[in-house]
Amino acid sequence: MDVNAITPKQGELSESKRMIMEVAAKLFADKGYGSVGISEVGDAAGFGKGALYYHIKSKEDLLFEIMTVYMIDLIEAARAIESSGKSVQERIIALSHSFMEIMFASRPEMTVCFREVHALKEERRKGVLSLHTEYQDIWMRVFQDGERKAILRPLTKIEIKAILGMYFYSFLWIKADGAAAIRSIGDSFADLTLRSTVLA
Amino acid sequence: MDVNAITPKQGELSESKRMIMEVAAKLFADKGYGSVGISEVGDAAGFGKGALYYHIKSKEDLLFEIMTVYMIDLIEAARAIESSGKSVQERIIALSHSFMEIMFASRPEMTVCFREVHALKEERRKGVLSLHTEYQDIWMRVFQDGERKAILRPLTKIEIKAILGMYFYSFLWIKADGAAAIRSIGDSFADLTLRSTVLA
Repeated sequence: MDVNAITPKQGELSESKRMIMEVAAKLFADKGYGSVGISEVGDAAGFGKGALYYHIKSKEDLLFEIMTVYMIDLIEAARAIESSGKSVQERIIALSHSFMEIMFASRPEMTVCFREVHALKEERRKGVLSLHTEYQDIWMRVFQDGERKAILRPLTKIEIKAILGMYFYSFLWIKADGAAAIRSIGDSFADLTLRSTVLA
Repeated sequence: MDVNAITPKQGELSESKRMIMEVAAKLFADKGYGSVGISEVGDAAGFGKGALYYHIKSKEDLLFEIMTVYMIDLIEAARAIESSGKSVQERIIALSHSFMEIMFASRPEMTVCFREVHALKEERRKGVLSLHTEYQDIWMRVFQDGERKAILRPLTKIEIKAILGMYFYSFLWIKADGAAAIRSIGDSFADLTLRSTVLA
């Protein structure tokens, strides 16, 4: 499935649609997807039924878009870093910062994604998982480039998944205060990653 | 809240109760807690309503016990390792193996815990979180002992939470085959942890 074909990029979303998605993500995160009716989303966002359905097709479409848009943000930021021409260490630090920034701005979306992914129909669930794979593959290519350049030790797929798990789990516990704190947490994670992978 | 006072340890659970909890954890993990009725749990476990209610008080009690029993297992195993008299490195490797064994045997329980913790009433939600803190504190004391002995560098709380997040996230993706594979994954995680924390 080409997820990009059915999920617009953040930049292409109208302000109204983006606002509806943010309101819905918060409601779904607070109350659970199953307990929130589409009219409740409309009320909270200040849209009547007609206007709401102009922006979204269905509640399941809304759920799917909430789960995919932040992943597409992560992938786009990571692709730019991958091809930035920076050193391996700088790319890992930049990936770490970009993850933390997007994660911190997308905590309701991530909560919804991790809690409700089973509520999606199979094709869409696979679509969400394929975005996660795509993101992981970018990190993997940076690690492999580090190995080729004899900067990093060779890493197994288990090790790469473990490191990325450290990042993804953070949405559950990080309660930072402001951009400087988020940047410093990104530094800490990059430091752990580099210490565990840089050749001695 | 003294969670231990209301949640029996694994060893103290009757075989029937343990079986009901396993069946319920799998049903809740597959279908979502909200979509599974208590009679469905009874049917799947082969218990009539009367027999079922002899073993469990309510569906919420069952949910709470599913979420706490594996954490109590983790805490007991970690306490034994903490006081084992082994070296700091050996304790970290043992904590890693014990996490992987219990996690792998408790994937439905962990799925339910991470997805449904918001369905608990506040006091019980705090009880679950306090078990996670208790478990994390054991790791923290081992890291601090390593620092005192000048084996490990000083770690911030953020770093310790990041490392533990790497462990907890693993239930979402590890699909190992047999005890040897689980042991080898435990080795990989311990290796990442030690590489990122041992003093050069």
